[in-house]
Amino acid sequence: MDIREKYQDGDDSLVEGRNAVAELLKSNRSINKLFVAENAHGRMMDILSLARQAGVPVIRCDRRKLDAMSVTGSHQGVIAQAAPYAYAALEALFEAAEKKQELPLFVICDSIEDPHNLGAILRSAEAAGAHGVIIPKRRATGLTPAAVKASAGAAEHITIHRAGNLPALLDTLKARGVWIFGAEADGNTSLYDADFAGASALVIGSEGKGISRLVREKCDFIINIPMRGRVNSLNASNAAAVLLYEAVRRRMEGKGDEAE
Amino acid sequence: MDIREKYQDGDDSLVEGRNAVAELLKSNRSINKLFVAENAHGRMMDILSLARQAGVPVIRCDRRKLDAMSVTGSHQGVIAQAAPYAYAALEALFEAAEKKQELPLFVICDSIEDPHNLGAILRSAEAAGAHGVIIPKRRATGLTPAAVKASAGAAEHITIHRAGNLPALLDTLKARGVWIFGAEADGNTSLYDADFAGASALVIGSEGKGISRLVREKCDFIINIPMRGRVNSLNASNAAAVLLYEAVRRRMEGKGDEAE
Repeated sequence: MDIREKYQDGDDSLVEGRNAVAELLKSNRSINKLFVAENAHGRMMDILSLARQAGVPVIRCDRRKLDAMSVTGSHQGVIAQAAPYAYAALEALFEAAEKKQELPLFVICDSIEDPHNLGAILRSAEAAGAHGVIIPKRRATGLTPAAVKASAGAAEHITIHRAGNLPALLDTLKARGVWIFGAEADGNTSLYDADFAGASALVIGSEGKGISRLVREKCDFIINIPMRGRVNSLNASNAAAVLLYEAVRRRMEGKGDEAE
Repeated sequence: MDIREKYQDGDDSLVEGRNAVAELLKSNRSINKLFVAENAHGRMMDILSLARQAGVPVIRCDRRKLDAMSVTGSHQGVIAQAAPYAYAALEALFEAAEKKQELPLFVICDSIEDPHNLGAILRSAEAAGAHGVIIPKRRATGLTPAAVKASAGAAEHITIHRAGNLPALLDTLKARGVWIFGAEADGNTSLYDADFAGASALVIGSEGKGISRLVREKCDFIINIPMRGRVNSLNASNAAAVLLYEAVRRRMEGKGDEAE
Protein backbone atom coordinates (compact mmCIF):
# COMPACT_ATOMS: atom_id res chain seq x y z
CA MET A 1 0.00 0.00 0.00
CA ASP A 2 1.27 3.46 -0.85
CA ILE A 3 1.15 5.36 2.44
CA ARG A 4 1.19 8.69 0.70
CA GLU A 5 -1.97 7.84 -1.19
CA LYS A 6 -3.49 6.61 1.99
CA TYR A 7 -2.89 9.97 3.57
CA GLN A 8 -4.18 11.83 0.56
CA ASP A 9 -7.45 9.98 0.89
CA GLY A 10 -7.91 11.97 4.07
CA ASP A 11 -6.51 9.57 6.60
CA ASP A 12 -4.29 12.21 8.25
CA SER A 13 -2.14 9.41 9.57
CA LEU A 14 1.48 10.44 8.91
CA VAL A 15 3.39 12.45 11.47
CA GLU A 16 6.81 13.66 10.32
CA GLY A 17 9.91 15.20 11.85
CA ARG A 18 11.77 14.62 15.11
CA ASN A 19 9.85 17.06 17.33
CA ALA A 20 6.40 16.06 16.11
CA VAL A 21 7.14 12.32 16.35
CA ALA A 22 8.68 12.65 19.82
CA GLU A 23 5.56 14.47 21.06
CA LEU A 24 3.35 11.90 19.33
CA LEU A 25 5.17 9.10 21.17
CA LYS A 26 4.57 10.88 24.48
CA SER A 27 0.86 11.26 23.72
CA ASN A 28 -1.92 8.71 24.04
CA ARG A 29 -2.53 8.40 20.32
CA SER A 30 -1.96 4.90 19.01
CA ILE A 31 0.87 4.46 16.54
CA ASN A 32 1.02 1.66 14.00
CA LYS A 33 4.63 1.93 12.85
CA LEU A 34 7.67 4.13 13.01
CA PHE A 35 9.83 4.51 9.90
CA VAL A 36 13.38 5.61 10.74
CA ALA A 37 16.29 6.33 8.40
CA GLU A 38 18.99 3.63 8.51
CA ASN A 39 21.79 6.04 9.30
CA ALA A 40 19.95 7.78 12.14
CA HIS A 41 21.94 8.93 15.16
CA GLY A 42 22.04 11.62 17.84
CA ARG A 43 18.59 12.89 18.84
CA MET A 44 17.00 9.94 17.06
CA MET A 45 18.21 7.69 19.87
CA ASP A 46 15.71 9.37 22.22
CA ILE A 47 12.93 8.70 19.75
CA LEU A 48 13.93 5.04 19.40
CA SER A 49 13.96 4.69 23.15
CA LEU A 50 10.49 6.25 23.44
CA ALA A 51 9.28 3.87 20.71
CA ARG A 52 10.69 0.88 22.58
CA GLN A 53 8.91 1.94 25.79
CA ALA A 54 5.65 2.39 23.90
CA GLY A 55 6.03 -0.93 22.09
CA VAL A 56 5.83 0.66 18.65
CA PRO A 57 7.35 -1.41 15.81
CA VAL A 58 10.31 0.41 14.24
CA ILE A 59 11.10 -0.10 10.56
CA ARG A 60 14.58 0.94 9.45
CA CYS A 61 14.51 2.12 5.87
CA ASP A 62 16.40 3.95 3.19
CA ARG A 63 16.23 7.73 3.37
CA ARG A 64 14.85 7.69 -0.19
CA LYS A 65 11.88 5.66 0.98
CA LEU A 66 11.17 8.32 3.61
CA ASP A 67 11.49 11.01 0.94
CA ALA A 68 8.88 9.21 -1.16
CA MET A 69 6.55 8.80 1.81
CA SER A 70 6.91 12.35 3.08
CA VAL A 71 4.05 14.78 2.57
CA THR A 72 5.68 17.78 4.26
CA GLY A 73 9.00 17.35 2.44
CA SER A 74 11.00 17.60 5.67
CA HIS A 75 10.79 14.34 7.61
CA GLN A 76 14.23 14.71 9.27
CA GLY A 77 14.71 10.95 9.04
CA VAL A 78 11.57 9.86 10.89
CA ILE A 79 7.94 9.32 9.99
CA ALA A 80 5.29 7.79 12.24
CA GLN A 81 2.18 6.13 10.91
CA ALA A 82 -0.41 6.94 13.52
CA ALA A 83 -4.01 5.85 13.87
CA PRO A 84 -6.33 8.35 12.18
CA TYR A 85 -6.72 11.47 14.31
CA ALA A 86 -9.72 11.13 16.57
CA TYR A 87 -11.44 14.49 16.89
CA ALA A 88 -13.04 15.12 20.27
CA ALA A 89 -16.67 15.75 21.10
CA LEU A 90 -17.49 19.33 22.06
CA GLU A 91 -18.14 18.12 25.59
CA ALA A 92 -14.48 17.12 25.92
CA LEU A 93 -13.44 20.78 25.58
CA PHE A 94 -15.64 21.77 28.50
CA GLU A 95 -14.28 18.83 30.48
CA ALA A 96 -10.70 19.96 29.80
CA ALA A 97 -11.57 23.32 31.38
CA GLU A 98 -13.36 21.71 34.33
CA LYS A 99 -10.43 19.42 34.99
CA LYS A 100 -8.18 22.46 35.40
CA GLN A 101 -10.90 24.25 37.41
CA GLU A 102 -10.80 27.12 34.96
CA LEU A 103 -13.44 28.90 32.93
CA PRO A 104 -13.33 27.72 29.31
CA LEU A 105 -10.92 29.39 26.90
CA PHE A 106 -11.44 28.07 23.37
CA VAL A 107 -10.09 29.03 19.95
CA ILE A 108 -12.36 28.75 16.92
CA CYS A 109 -10.65 28.70 13.52
CA ASP A 110 -13.06 29.98 10.89
CA SER A 111 -11.74 28.43 7.68
CA ILE A 112 -7.96 28.56 8.17
CA GLU A 113 -6.56 27.28 4.87
CA ASP A 114 -2.83 27.11 5.52
CA PRO A 115 -1.81 24.04 7.55
CA HIS A 116 1.23 25.94 8.92
CA ASN A 117 -1.10 28.55 10.33
CA LEU A 118 -3.39 25.90 11.83
CA GLY A 119 -0.36 24.16 13.36
CA ALA A 120 0.98 27.39 14.84
CA ILE A 121 -2.48 28.21 16.25
CA LEU A 122 -2.68 24.77 17.93
CA ARG A 123 0.81 25.37 19.36
CA SER A 124 -0.03 28.81 20.74
CA ALA A 125 -3.40 27.64 22.06
CA GLU A 126 -1.81 24.72 23.89
CA ALA A 127 1.03 26.89 25.21
CA ALA A 128 -1.42 29.51 26.46
CA GLY A 129 -3.36 26.84 28.33
CA ALA A 130 -6.51 27.07 26.21
CA HIS A 131 -8.87 24.15 26.70
CA GLY A 132 -9.58 23.33 23.09
CA VAL A 133 -9.61 24.34 19.45
CA ILE A 134 -12.59 24.07 17.13
CA ILE A 135 -12.14 23.74 13.38
CA PRO A 136 -14.83 23.43 10.71
CA LYS A 137 -15.28 20.26 8.69
CA ARG A 138 -15.46 22.01 5.34
CA ARG A 139 -13.58 24.74 3.47
CA ALA A 140 -10.60 24.61 5.83
CA THR A 141 -7.46 22.61 6.35
CA GLY A 142 -7.76 19.62 8.65
CA LEU A 143 -5.05 18.10 10.76
CA THR A 144 -2.74 17.31 7.85
CA PRO A 145 0.84 16.11 8.45
CA ALA A 146 2.05 19.66 7.75
CA ALA A 147 -0.32 21.05 10.40
CA VAL A 148 0.70 18.40 12.94
CA LYS A 149 4.38 19.12 12.27
CA ALA A 150 3.90 22.89 12.54
CA SER A 151 2.12 22.37 15.87
CA ALA A 152 5.42 21.02 17.30
CA GLY A 153 3.56 18.39 19.27
CA ALA A 154 0.65 20.54 20.46
CA ALA A 155 -1.79 18.66 18.21
CA GLU A 156 -1.25 15.64 20.44
CA HIS A 157 -1.96 17.51 23.66
CA ILE A 158 -4.80 19.91 22.95
CA THR A 159 -8.42 18.84 22.52
CA ILE A 160 -9.67 19.45 18.98
CA HIS A 161 -13.31 19.37 17.91
CA ARG A 162 -14.36 19.43 14.27
CA ALA A 163 -17.73 21.12 13.71
CA GLY A 164 -20.09 20.43 10.84
CA ASN A 165 -21.87 23.75 11.27
CA LEU A 166 -19.92 26.56 12.91
CA PRO A 167 -22.81 29.05 13.36
CA ALA A 168 -24.93 26.35 15.04
CA LEU A 169 -21.98 25.45 17.28
CA LEU A 170 -21.66 29.09 18.33
CA ASP A 171 -25.32 29.04 19.41
CA THR A 172 -24.56 25.99 21.55
CA LEU A 173 -21.54 27.69 23.13
CA LYS A 174 -23.54 30.85 23.84
CA ALA A 175 -26.33 28.83 25.43
CA ARG A 176 -23.69 27.40 27.75
CA GLY A 177 -22.46 30.82 28.81
CA VAL A 178 -19.43 31.19 26.57
CA TRP A 179 -18.78 34.72 25.24
CA ILE A 180 -17.79 34.78 21.56
CA PHE A 181 -15.04 37.23 20.56
CA GLY A 182 -14.33 37.72 16.86
CA ALA A 183 -11.15 39.51 15.78
CA GLU A 184 -11.55 41.88 12.84
CA ALA A 185 -9.83 45.06 11.67
CA ASP A 186 -13.07 47.04 11.99
CA GLY A 187 -13.97 45.75 15.44
CA ASN A 188 -15.41 48.36 17.80
CA THR A 189 -14.01 46.86 21.01
CA SER A 190 -10.30 47.34 21.60
CA LEU A 191 -8.33 44.20 22.37
CA TYR A 192 -7.26 45.74 25.66
CA ASP A 193 -10.84 46.48 26.72
CA ALA A 194 -12.10 42.98 25.98
CA ASP A 195 -13.04 40.97 29.06
CA PHE A 196 -11.60 37.50 28.59
CA ALA A 197 -12.01 36.58 32.26
CA GLY A 198 -15.31 34.76 31.70
CA ALA A 199 -15.84 31.68 29.58
CA SER A 200 -14.47 32.85 26.22
CA ALA A 201 -14.11 31.64 22.64
CA LEU A 202 -11.77 33.54 20.32
CA VAL A 203 -12.74 33.38 16.65
CA ILE A 204 -9.86 33.66 14.15
CA GLY A 205 -10.86 34.39 10.55
CA SER A 206 -9.35 32.89 7.42
CA GLU A 207 -6.17 34.27 5.87
CA GLY A 208 -7.81 36.00 2.94
CA LYS A 209 -11.37 36.71 3.91
CA GLY A 210 -11.47 37.12 7.68
CA ILE A 211 -14.50 35.88 9.58
CA SER A 212 -17.43 34.65 7.48
CA ARG A 213 -20.68 36.62 7.69
CA LEU A 214 -22.75 33.91 9.39
CA VAL A 215 -20.11 33.38 12.05
CA ARG A 216 -19.59 37.11 12.55
CA GLU A 217 -23.30 37.59 13.22
CA LYS A 218 -23.05 35.17 16.13
CA CYS A 219 -20.12 36.99 17.79
CA ASP A 220 -20.90 38.84 21.03
CA PHE A 221 -17.97 41.21 20.49
CA ILE A 222 -15.88 42.15 17.46
CA ILE A 223 -12.52 43.20 18.81
CA ASN A 224 -9.73 44.94 16.96
CA ILE A 225 -6.02 44.43 17.40
CA PRO A 226 -4.47 47.92 17.18
CA MET A 227 -2.93 48.47 13.73
CA ARG A 228 -0.33 51.16 14.14
CA GLY A 229 1.40 50.83 10.77
CA ARG A 230 0.23 50.54 7.20
CA VAL A 231 -0.68 46.87 6.90
CA ASN A 232 -4.23 46.23 8.07
CA SER A 233 -4.06 42.76 9.56
CA LEU A 234 -1.78 40.19 11.14
CA ASN A 235 -1.03 36.69 9.97
CA ALA A 236 -3.86 34.46 11.31
CA SER A 237 -1.67 32.56 13.76
CA ASN A 238 0.00 35.74 15.00
CA ALA A 239 -3.43 37.27 15.61
CA ALA A 240 -4.46 34.15 17.54
CA ALA A 241 -1.29 34.33 19.67
CA VAL A 242 -1.87 38.01 20.51
CA LEU A 243 -5.47 37.33 21.55
CA LEU A 244 -4.60 34.21 23.52
CA TYR A 245 -1.85 35.92 25.47
CA GLU A 246 -3.98 38.95 26.21
CA ALA A 247 -6.49 36.47 27.66
CA VAL A 248 -3.66 34.83 29.64
CA ARG A 249 -2.54 38.21 30.97
CA ARG A 250 -6.06 39.15 32.06
CA ARG A 251 -6.59 35.82 33.73
CA MET A 252 -3.15 35.80 35.42
CA GLU A 253 -3.49 39.33 36.70
CA GLY A 254 -7.11 38.82 37.64
CA LYS A 255 -7.98 42.03 35.86
CA GLY A 256 -10.84 40.52 33.96
CA ASP A 257 -13.42 42.59 35.80
CA GLU A 258 -11.76 45.91 35.14
CA ALA A 259 -12.71 46.20 31.46
CA GLU A 260 -13.67 49.79 30.72
CA MET B 1 17.79 35.76 -18.80
CA ASP B 2 16.11 33.27 -16.47
CA ILE B 3 14.56 35.38 -13.76
CA ARG B 4 14.38 32.46 -11.39
CA GLU B 5 18.13 31.92 -11.58
CA LYS B 6 18.64 35.61 -11.12
CA TYR B 7 16.75 35.41 -7.90
CA GLN B 8 18.61 32.35 -6.78
CA ASP B 9 21.83 34.27 -7.17
CA GLY B 10 20.61 36.33 -4.24
CA ASP B 11 18.96 39.18 -6.03
CA ASP B 12 15.73 38.97 -4.02
CA SER B 13 13.98 40.75 -6.83
CA LEU B 14 10.73 38.85 -7.42
CA VAL B 15 7.61 39.80 -5.53
CA GLU B 16 4.66 37.44 -6.01
CA GLY B 17 0.96 37.38 -5.25
CA ARG B 18 -1.76 40.01 -5.38
CA ASN B 19 -1.42 41.43 -1.86
CA ALA B 20 2.37 41.63 -1.92
CA VAL B 21 2.47 43.19 -5.38
CA ALA B 22 -0.26 45.73 -4.54
CA GLU B 23 1.71 46.83 -1.46
CA LEU B 24 4.92 46.94 -3.50
CA LEU B 25 3.25 49.25 -6.02
CA LYS B 26 2.17 51.57 -3.19
CA SER B 27 5.73 51.66 -1.78
CA ASN B 28 8.70 53.68 -2.95
CA ARG B 29 10.68 50.70 -4.18
CA SER B 30 11.42 50.86 -7.90
CA ILE B 31 9.86 48.17 -10.06
CA ASN B 32 11.30 47.09 -13.38
CA LYS B 33 8.39 45.07 -14.79
CA LEU B 34 5.09 43.56 -13.86
CA PHE B 35 4.16 40.12 -15.24
CA VAL B 36 0.41 39.53 -15.27
CA ALA B 37 -1.55 36.45 -16.41
CA GLU B 38 -3.39 37.02 -19.68
CA ASN B 39 -6.78 36.02 -18.31
CA ALA B 40 -6.52 38.25 -15.22
CA HIS B 41 -9.68 39.93 -13.97
CA GLY B 42 -11.35 41.11 -10.75
CA ARG B 43 -8.90 42.31 -8.12
CA MET B 44 -6.13 42.35 -10.71
CA MET B 45 -7.74 45.47 -12.22
CA ASP B 46 -6.72 47.46 -9.12
CA ILE B 47 -3.16 46.24 -9.52
CA LEU B 48 -3.10 47.21 -13.19
CA SER B 49 -4.43 50.63 -12.33
CA LEU B 50 -1.74 51.11 -9.66
CA ALA B 51 0.89 50.01 -12.19
CA ARG B 52 -0.39 52.54 -14.73
CA GLN B 53 -0.18 55.33 -12.15
CA ALA B 54 3.36 54.30 -11.21
CA GLY B 55 4.43 54.01 -14.86
CA VAL B 56 5.48 50.38 -14.46
CA PRO B 57 5.62 48.37 -17.73
CA VAL B 58 3.10 45.51 -17.67
CA ILE B 59 3.85 42.30 -19.56
CA ARG B 60 0.86 40.02 -20.21
CA CYS B 61 1.95 36.42 -20.29
CA ASP B 62 0.81 32.87 -20.17
CA ARG B 63 0.02 31.47 -16.72
CA ARG B 64 2.56 28.73 -17.43
CA LYS B 65 5.30 31.33 -17.80
CA LEU B 66 4.39 32.69 -14.37
CA ASP B 67 4.44 29.16 -12.96
CA ALA B 68 7.97 28.70 -14.29
CA MET B 69 9.12 32.06 -12.90
CA SER B 70 7.51 31.60 -9.48
CA VAL B 71 9.70 30.84 -6.52
CA THR B 72 6.93 30.70 -3.91
CA GLY B 73 4.70 28.47 -6.03
CA SER B 74 1.65 30.68 -5.49
CA HIS B 75 1.88 33.79 -7.65
CA GLN B 76 -1.91 34.26 -8.00
CA GLY B 77 -1.40 35.51 -11.56
CA VAL B 78 1.01 38.35 -10.86
CA ILE B 79 4.77 38.67 -10.34
CA ALA B 80 6.68 41.94 -10.04
CA GLN B 81 10.34 42.23 -10.84
CA ALA B 82 11.55 44.82 -8.36
CA ALA B 83 14.91 46.46 -7.93
CA PRO B 84 17.08 44.52 -5.46
CA TYR B 85 15.95 45.16 -1.90
CA ALA B 86 17.93 48.01 -0.39
CA TYR B 87 18.58 47.28 3.28
CA ALA B 88 18.65 50.37 5.46
CA ALA B 89 21.48 51.72 7.59
CA LEU B 90 20.99 51.26 11.33
CA GLU B 91 20.59 55.02 11.63
CA ALA B 92 17.42 54.84 9.52
CA LEU B 93 15.72 52.78 12.25
CA PHE B 94 16.41 55.47 14.84
CA GLU B 95 15.18 58.11 12.38
CA ALA B 96 11.94 56.15 11.88
CA ALA B 97 11.34 56.37 15.63
CA GLU B 98 12.25 60.06 15.79
CA LYS B 99 9.93 60.89 12.94
CA LYS B 100 7.03 59.45 14.93
CA GLN B 101 8.31 61.13 18.11
CA GLU B 102 8.43 57.76 19.83
CA LEU B 103 11.11 55.87 21.70
CA PRO B 104 12.61 53.15 19.49
CA LEU B 105 10.91 49.75 19.31
CA PHE B 106 12.98 47.33 17.25
CA VAL B 107 12.77 43.60 16.51
CA ILE B 108 15.99 41.62 16.14
CA CYS B 109 15.71 38.25 14.42
CA ASP B 110 18.51 35.98 15.58
CA SER B 111 18.85 33.49 12.72
CA ILE B 112 15.25 32.94 11.64
CA GLU B 113 15.49 30.23 8.98
CA ASP B 114 11.94 29.97 7.69
CA PRO B 115 11.01 32.78 5.26
CA HIS B 116 7.33 32.45 6.25
CA ASN B 117 8.29 33.18 9.84
CA LEU B 118 10.44 36.15 8.81
CA GLY B 119 7.59 37.48 6.66
CA ALA B 120 5.06 37.12 9.47
CA ILE B 121 7.46 38.86 11.89
CA LEU B 122 7.86 41.80 9.48
CA ARG B 123 4.07 41.96 9.19
CA SER B 124 3.48 41.96 12.94
CA ALA B 125 6.33 44.42 13.54
CA GLU B 126 4.91 46.85 10.99
CA ALA B 127 1.36 46.41 12.27
CA ALA B 128 2.49 47.03 15.86
CA GLY B 129 4.19 50.25 14.80
CA ALA B 130 7.75 49.05 15.47
CA HIS B 131 10.40 51.26 13.92
CA GLY B 132 12.53 48.61 12.31
CA VAL B 133 13.64 45.01 12.08
CA ILE B 134 17.24 43.80 12.19
CA ILE B 135 18.28 40.53 10.56
CA PRO B 136 21.74 38.96 10.41
CA LYS B 137 23.65 38.62 7.13
CA ARG B 138 24.60 35.00 7.71
CA ARG B 139 22.92 31.78 8.83
CA ALA B 140 19.43 33.18 8.37
CA THR B 141 16.89 33.70 5.65
CA GLY B 142 17.05 37.04 3.87
CA LEU B 143 14.21 38.88 2.21
CA THR B 144 13.35 36.07 -0.22
CA PRO B 145 10.21 36.20 -2.37
CA ALA B 146 8.51 33.83 0.10
CA ALA B 147 9.36 36.17 3.00
CA VAL B 148 8.16 39.23 1.10
CA LYS B 149 4.92 37.46 0.20
CA ALA B 150 4.35 36.26 3.76
CA SER B 151 4.86 39.83 4.99
CA ALA B 152 1.70 40.84 3.06
CA GLY B 153 3.30 44.13 2.04
CA ALA B 154 4.96 44.97 5.36
CA ALA B 155 8.43 44.38 3.87
CA GLU B 156 7.86 47.46 1.74
CA HIS B 157 6.87 49.68 4.64
CA ILE B 158 9.12 48.75 7.54
CA THR B 159 12.79 49.69 7.79
CA ILE B 160 15.06 46.64 7.66
CA HIS B 161 18.74 46.59 8.57
CA ARG B 162 21.00 43.65 7.85
CA ALA B 163 23.82 43.27 10.36
CA GLY B 164 27.16 41.61 9.70
CA ASN B 165 27.78 41.04 13.41
CA LEU B 166 24.76 40.83 15.68
CA PRO B 167 26.60 40.91 19.07
CA ALA B 168 28.55 44.02 17.98
CA LEU B 169 25.30 45.62 16.83
CA LEU B 170 23.74 44.97 20.24
CA ASP B 171 26.66 46.84 21.85
CA THR B 172 25.94 49.79 19.56
CA LEU B 173 22.24 49.74 20.47
CA LYS B 174 23.02 49.55 24.19
CA ALA B 175 25.45 52.47 23.94
CA ARG B 176 22.57 54.45 22.45
CA GLY B 177 20.25 53.66 25.34
CA VAL B 178 18.25 50.79 23.87
CA TRP B 179 17.30 48.01 26.31
CA ILE B 180 17.72 44.52 24.87
CA PHE B 181 15.02 41.95 25.71
CA GLY B 182 15.61 38.34 24.70
CA ALA B 183 12.70 35.88 24.78
CA GLU B 184 13.56 32.41 26.08
CA ALA B 185 11.66 29.64 27.88
CA ASP B 186 13.98 29.89 30.90
CA GLY B 187 13.87 33.68 31.18
CA ASN B 188 13.65 35.01 34.72
CA THR B 189 11.59 38.11 33.91
CA SER B 190 7.91 37.55 33.18
CA LEU B 191 6.64 39.03 29.96
CA TYR B 192 4.10 41.03 31.93
CA ASP B 193 6.74 42.51 34.21
CA ALA B 194 9.00 43.64 31.38
CA ASP B 195 9.22 47.39 30.93
CA PHE B 196 8.94 48.06 27.22
CA ALA B 197 8.20 51.75 27.71
CA GLY B 198 11.81 52.82 27.14
CA ALA B 199 13.82 52.38 23.95
CA SER B 200 13.52 48.60 23.43
CA ALA B 201 14.79 45.88 21.12
CA LEU B 202 13.07 42.48 21.20
CA VAL B 203 15.31 39.54 20.26
CA ILE B 204 13.56 36.54 18.67
CA GLY B 205 15.59 33.33 18.53
CA SER B 206 15.72 30.84 15.69
CA GLU B 207 13.09 28.13 15.28
CA GLY B 208 15.20 25.24 16.46
CA LYS B 209 17.90 26.67 18.68
CA GLY B 210 16.52 29.81 20.28
CA ILE B 211 18.85 32.74 20.86
CA SER B 212 22.54 32.12 20.19
CA ARG B 213 24.92 32.28 23.15
CA LEU B 214 26.83 35.39 22.07
CA VAL B 215 23.60 37.29 21.46
CA ARG B 216 22.06 36.08 24.72
CA GLU B 217 25.03 37.36 26.71
CA LYS B 218 24.32 40.86 25.41
CA CYS B 219 20.65 40.85 26.45
CA ASP B 220 19.73 43.12 29.38
CA PHE B 221 16.73 40.94 30.22
CA ILE B 222 15.72 37.40 29.35
CA ILE B 223 11.95 37.33 29.46
CA ASN B 224 9.69 34.31 29.42
CA ILE B 225 6.32 34.02 27.76
CA PRO B 226 4.14 31.99 30.18
CA MET B 227 3.87 28.38 29.01
CA ARG B 228 0.72 26.97 30.57
CA GLY B 229 0.48 23.73 28.60
CA ARG B 230 2.91 21.00 27.63
CA VAL B 231 4.72 22.50 24.64
CA ASN B 232 7.63 24.65 25.77
CA SER B 233 7.80 27.35 23.12
CA LEU B 234 5.79 29.25 20.54
CA ASN B 235 6.38 29.48 16.83
CA ALA B 236 8.99 32.26 16.32
CA SER B 237 6.58 34.68 14.63
CA ASN B 238 3.86 34.04 17.21
CA ALA B 239 6.37 34.78 19.99
CA ALA B 240 7.34 38.01 18.21
CA ALA B 241 3.67 39.04 17.90
CA VAL B 242 2.99 38.38 21.60
CA LEU B 243 6.03 40.47 22.64
CA LEU B 244 5.28 43.27 20.20
CA TYR B 245 1.68 43.60 21.32
CA GLU B 246 2.60 43.52 24.99
CA ALA B 247 4.94 46.43 24.17
CA VAL B 248 2.07 48.16 22.32
CA ARG B 249 -0.24 47.67 25.29
CA ARG B 250 2.30 49.07 27.74
CA ARG B 251 2.99 52.05 25.52
CA MET B 252 -0.72 52.71 24.79
CA GLU B 253 -1.74 52.45 28.41
CA GLY B 254 1.30 54.41 29.56
CA LYS B 255 1.95 51.72 32.12
CA GLY B 256 5.60 51.35 31.25
CA ASP B 257 6.72 52.67 34.64
CA GLU B 258 4.56 50.37 36.71
CA ALA B 259 6.59 47.19 36.20
CA GLU B 260 6.69 45.30 39.45
